[in-house]
Amino acid sequence: MAVVTGRVSLKTKGESDIIDVTDNVGEAVKNSRLRRGIATIFVPGSTGALTTIEYEPGLLHDLPTALERVAPRETSYEHDKRWHDGNGHSHVRASILGPSLTVPFEDGKLILGTWQQIIFIELDVRARTRDLVVQIIGE
Amino acid sequence: MAVVTGRVSLKTKGESDIIDVTDNVGEAVKNSRLRRGIATIFVPGSTGALTTIEYEPGLLHDLPTALERVAPRETSYEHDKRWHDGNGHSHVRASILGPSLTVPFEDGKLILGTWQQIIFIELDVRARTRDLVVQIIGE
Amino acid sequence: MAVVTGRVSLKTKGESDIIDVTDNVGEAVKNSRLRRGIATIFVPGSTGALTTIEYEPGLLHDLPTALERVAPRETSYEHDKRWHDGNGHSHVRASILGPSLTVPFEDGKLILGTWQQIIFIELDVRARTRDLVVQIIGE
Repeated sequence: MAVVTGRVSLKTKGESDIIDVTDNVGEAVKNSRLRRGIATIFVPGSTGALTTIEYEPGLLHDLPTALERVAPRETSYEHDKRWHDGNGHSHVRASILGPSLTVPFEDGKLILGTWQQIIFIELDVRARTRDLVVQIIGE
Repeated sequence: MAVVTGRVSLKTKGESDIIDVTDNVGEAVKNSRLRRGIATIFVPGSTGALTTIEYEPGLLHDLPTALERVAPRETSYEHDKRWHDGNGHSHVRASILGPSLTVPFEDGKLILGTWQQIIFIELDVRARTRDLVVQIIGE
Repeated sequence: MAVVTGRVSLKTKGESDIIDVTDNVGEAVKNSRLRRGIATIFVPGSTGALTTIEYEPGLLHDLPTALERVAPRETSYEHDKRWHDGNGHSHVRASILGPSLTVPFEDGKLILGTWQQIIFIELDVRARTRDLVVQIIGE
C-alpha cells in the first residue's frame, strides 16, 4: 500500500468552462504504478467543483442552466455586498457541487462508465489557473 | 492495510427508483475482513447517483420532487436535441448529486446514523441494470 | 500505511447553522502523525451535510438561500405528512449536499485553498449535538 500525489494544472476560460480531466487523472493513476485503489481529485479553492458527466456539447450547456436555477447570477448576494467581486453565485454553486470526487481504479485503470468523464467546472466569473490534486491510495 | 473490491448488482425499475444498498455495502465490508477504513461506493455511468437518506416512503417521493425543481423533465435540453434519448434532465441531476460516496467503517461495520441509509438513485428514464463498485481500503 | 479515526463533536444552534470545522479536522490529521493521505469527514445522520466554502458572513446567508430554492421550507413534504417532525426539507437538502467530504493532506497538513474552509451545515430544524467522524488514511 502507498500514497502517491499527482497534480493537474488547468487554465480555464471563465465562468461555466467545463474541462474533461479524465485523461489527466488516468495518467496520474498510471504514473503511480499502483494497480488497485482510489483516486481522490480535489480542487483547492472555493469557486470550482468536480463531478462526472457524459462529456458532450449539449450537457456542457444544460448543466450550467440547472445551476442558474439553484443560484442565479442576477439576484442579490450578501457575499457581493461585502466583497464586490460579483461571484456570490459562483461560491454557492461550488459548495453545492462539492470540491472533491473519489473514483476507484483496478488494473491501473479508472473504473468509469463508457459515457462518463471526470470534469472540472470553473464557476468563478473570470479565467483562472487551477491546480487540482490527485491523491492516489492503493496497492 | 489492503484494498478489497466488492460489487453490488441492481435491477432498477426506471426513473426515480431509489434503492437502499446499505446491507449490500455492509456485506462487502464484512466480506473484506478489514476492521477499520473507508468504503467508496461508485456508479460507473452518468445517469445514476449515490447519497444517503432516511429510507422511508415519504422521502422517496420528496427527493425526486426537489430534483424536478433543479432539472425539470418538461423543459428543453441541448442534450436531447442532439441525442434524442429524452434523458437530458437525468444527466444533469446525476452530475449534481454525484457518482461517488465514501463511508467510514470501524470494527468491520459501517459508521452510519440510525436513520441513515446508503441509496442508489436511478435517474435514467428507463429500467437499468447497475453494477456498483465498492472499493474498500483499510486494515 | 495506517488508518486513524478522529472525532469532532459539535453543538449546533439550529437550522442553517454553518460551522467551520477546518481546524478540528486539521488537528485530527496532525494527531494521526500521518504525513500524506486523505481525510474523509462524515456525518452519521440524515439531516446534516459537509462541504467547503469561503467562510465569511455573506455566504453563510447565501448558501441557505439557495437551498431554499431547491427544497423550500413552506411547501408540502410526504415525509412531514407521515412523521410530523417538520423537517422534510432538511432531509432533502442533506441528501443533495451529501454526508461525506474527502480532503487530501501532505506534510501533515490539509491541502485547501486560502479562502476555502471545511464546513458542517446543520439542516435540521432544531439545535443538535453532532459527532463527526474523521477517517484518516495515509503514511
